[in-house]
Amino acid sequence: MGNAYAERRNRLLGRMAERGIDAALIVSPTSIYYLTGFLSDPHERFLALLLDARKNAEALFVPLLDAESARRNGTVADIVPLSDTEDPYARLSGALSASAAAVGVEKNVLTLDRAERIARLVPNAALVDLTPELESMRVRKTAEEIAKVQAAVDLIEKVVAHAAERAAVGMTELDLTAELEYQMKRLGADRPSFESIVLTGSRTALPHGVPETVPIREGDFVLIDIGAQVNGYCSDITRTFLMGEGTKEQERIYETVLAANRAGIAAARAGTAASEVDRAARDVIAAAGYGDFFTHRVGHGFGLDIHEFPSLHGANPALLESGMLFTVEPGIYVPELGGVRIEDDVYVQEDGSVRVLTSYPKSLTRLG
Amino acid sequence: MGNAYAERRNRLLGRMAERGIDAALIVSPTSIYYLTGFLSDPHERFLALLLDARKNAEALFVPLLDAESARRNGTVADIVPLSDTEDPYARLSGALSASAAAVGVEKNVLTLDRAERIARLVPNAALVDLTPELESMRVRKTAEEIAKVQAAVDLIEKVVAHAAERAAVGMTELDLTAELEYQMKRLGADRPSFESIVLTGSRTALPHGVPETVPIREGDFVLIDIGAQVNGYCSDITRTFLMGEGTKEQERIYETVLAANRAGIAAARAGTAASEVDRAARDVIAAAGYGDFFTHRVGHGFGLDIHEFPSLHGANPALLESGMLFTVEPGIYVPELGGVRIEDDVYVQEDGSVRVLTSYPKSLTRLG
Repeated sequence: MGNAYAERRNRLLGRMAERGIDAALIVSPTSIYYLTGFLSDPHERFLALLLDARKNAEALFVPLLDAESARRNGTVADIVPLSDTEDPYARLSGALSASAAAVGVEKNVLTLDRAERIARLVPNAALVDLTPELESMRVRKTAEEIAKVQAAVDLIEKVVAHAAERAAVGMTELDLTAELEYQMKRLGADRPSFESIVLTGSRTALPHGVPETVPIREGDFVLIDIGAQVNGYCSDITRTFLMGEGTKEQERIYETVLAANRAGIAAARAGTAASEVDRAARDVIAAAGYGDFFTHRVGHGFGLDIHEFPSLHGANPALLESGMLFTVEPGIYVPELGGVRIEDDVYVQEDGSVRVLTSYPKSLTRLG
Repeated sequence: MGNAYAERRNRLLGRMAERGIDAALIVSPTSIYYLTGFLSDPHERFLALLLDARKNAEALFVPLLDAESARRNGTVADIVPLSDTEDPYARLSGALSASAAAVGVEKNVLTLDRAERIARLVPNAALVDLTPELESMRVRKTAEEIAKVQAAVDLIEKVVAHAAERAAVGMTELDLTAELEYQMKRLGADRPSFESIVLTGSRTALPHGVPETVPIREGDFVLIDIGAQVNGYCSDITRTFLMGEGTKEQERIYETVLAANRAGIAAARAGTAASEVDRAARDVIAAAGYGDFFTHRVGHGFGLDIHEFPSLHGANPALLESGMLFTVEPGIYVPELGGVRIEDDVYVQEDGSVRVLTSYPKSLTRLG
C-alpha cells in the first residue's frame, strides 16, 4: 500500500505539471491521508504536505507530538516536526521554492489567514486551486477503497440491527444514541462518521435534529441516521422504524419514501446526470402529494470525508462516473406528524452499473 | 439570555465602528452561537451571520433544513434559508452593501474560496480580520459561561470516576473508551468535546495516541484524557492511573508531573505571562531530568471550542487576564516506558486569582 500512496502523489504531480503548478501545499487531513497514509486531526496546529516539483522534493510538516505516528504510518521520508513554539512558515520558507510562479492549494479548505502567510513566502506566485485535481482523484474510489467502505457499512448495519432490537417504548433518543455509539466503538469503529441522528415522534420531521432526552412512544416513527468511520473510511445509513402499529398515513409516507429511494437508485448509473437521480426520487414524492416536504438534496458523495463530491441535487448537471460513491436518501418531513428517510450507499462500478453497499432490509419494520 | 446575545452583537458592531469596518460576515459555527444563540454544524453548507452597519441590518443565512431550528433557538429576526440548489452568494449580494470599504471576516476560519467569492461581491472593499475582536470578546468568559463549563466539568468527572471503577486488567483501550462515551451521553453530554484518549502501557507515551484494541496489563499506566460538551461548552481533563503496583520509576514520573501541574497552576494569575505558566511547569520536569520528554505546550484556552485563546506555550508573552479559561496539562512521555499527563481546567477570576474547576483527586491512584 506504501507504493499506492507514492503513486497517488506522482499522479498529482503529473496533473500539476500539466497546469504549470510548481509546488503544492496540501492541508486537508483527509487529502494528506489519501496521499501519504498518515491520518491525524491536528486541531489548530499546522499540518501540511509539501510537493515541490521544482526542487523535486516532498515533505510532511507535522506537529511534534504526531511526528512519531507520521513516521510509522506515513510514506513520506522527510517528516518535519514542528514544536508548539515554532513558526511553521519560517520552516516552510526554506522548503518551498521562493521563485515559484504558481503554488497549488485547496481553496475550499485553506483558511484566508494561512493563504496570506503562504503568499508572503512566494511573493511572485499565484495561489491556484488544486481542489479539482484532488476531487477528481478522490472521487474515483478504487476496489481497495470500496472494500474499506464496505467494512464500514457492514459494521454500521450490525449497529442498526442492534438498534432495532433495543429500541423500546420509554427509551429516550439519547439513551439509544449512547447505546449505538457504544456498539460502534466495541465493534472497532474509529469514530462515528458524523453526529448520530436518533429521533422519535414528531421530531423525526427535523432532517438535522439532535437526539434529546425525549422518550419513544407507541406509534412513533423512530429514525436512525448513523455512520461509522473504519480505517479512515465512512459509512452512512438511515433506516426509519415504526414503534407499534402506527397509522395508515404513516404507512403511506413510508411506502412513498421507499419507492423514491428505489427510483433514485434505479436512475443511478455512469453517464446519468446527478440531477436525474434527485429528480427520479423527487418525482415519486411529488406524485404522492408530499413534494413540499422533501426539503434537501437526494444525496452526497462520501469516502474519507462524510461529504465529498458529487453532490446529488436537482441543479447539478455533472454526469455520474465509474468509481463514484454516494448516498441516495430521500425523505418526507411533515411538521407535527413526523418524518421518514431511507438512505443507502451506492457505488458506480467499472461497467457503469451500480452496486448498493447497504443491505439492511428496507420494508417497513414495526418494533416492539 | 436573548438580550445577552443581542448585546454581544452590539458590542461587536461598536468595535467594528472603531476600526471603520462597515460590515461583517461571521462563519464560525461557535462564533455564530456566541453571537446569536443558534448552534449548528453546517458541514460544507453555507452558514453565515451578516452584520451590516451601513444598512443597520443583521441576517442569519442558514441551510434550509436548519431554518426552523435557527428561528427557534436564534435571536436574529431575519433568517435567510438557503436550499441546496441555491447560490448563497447571490442571496448575500442583496444584503451586503456593495459599496462597503471594509468587510470584517474571520481569517483563521474563512476559506480562501469563500473569501474570493465574498470579495467579488464587494469589489472595492478590503477583507479585514475580525479574529482579534472576536477572540478578545470570547476569551473573557462571563459567570454564566463558567457555570456552563462547570457543568461540563462536573459531568466529565463523573465519567472519570466511572473509568477508575471499571478499568481492569484485560479490558482494552477501546472497550474502556466505548464505556466512557456511553456514560457521557447517558449523563446528558451533547458530545465528547474532542476524540477521547484512553491509552495503556507504553502507548501512554503517545501524547495524541488513539485508543486501540490493546488490553490493560498489570503495572500499566492508564491515561484518560476526555472532555464533554454540554450546552455548547467544553470540559477537558486528564488523569493517569496505575494498574496495580507499578515501579519506583513510574511513581517518580507521576510525582514529577503532579508537582509540575501544581507549579503551573500556582504560577497562573492575571498579569502573569502565558509563557510563565509553561516555564513554571517545565522547570519542575527539567529539574527532575525529564525535560526532553515534555514535548508540548503546558495548556490551551477553551470554551465553546476545545482549543481557543490563549495558548500557554513558552514563547507566548501575552498576559493572563480575568475571564480567561484554560487547561494546565504538563506531561512526561518516555518511549517504551510510558507517559503521564495530569490536566486541570483553570479560570482566572475577577480578582485576578484562579479557580480550578476540576476537582477529581490527583494523588497517584492504583487501580484493580
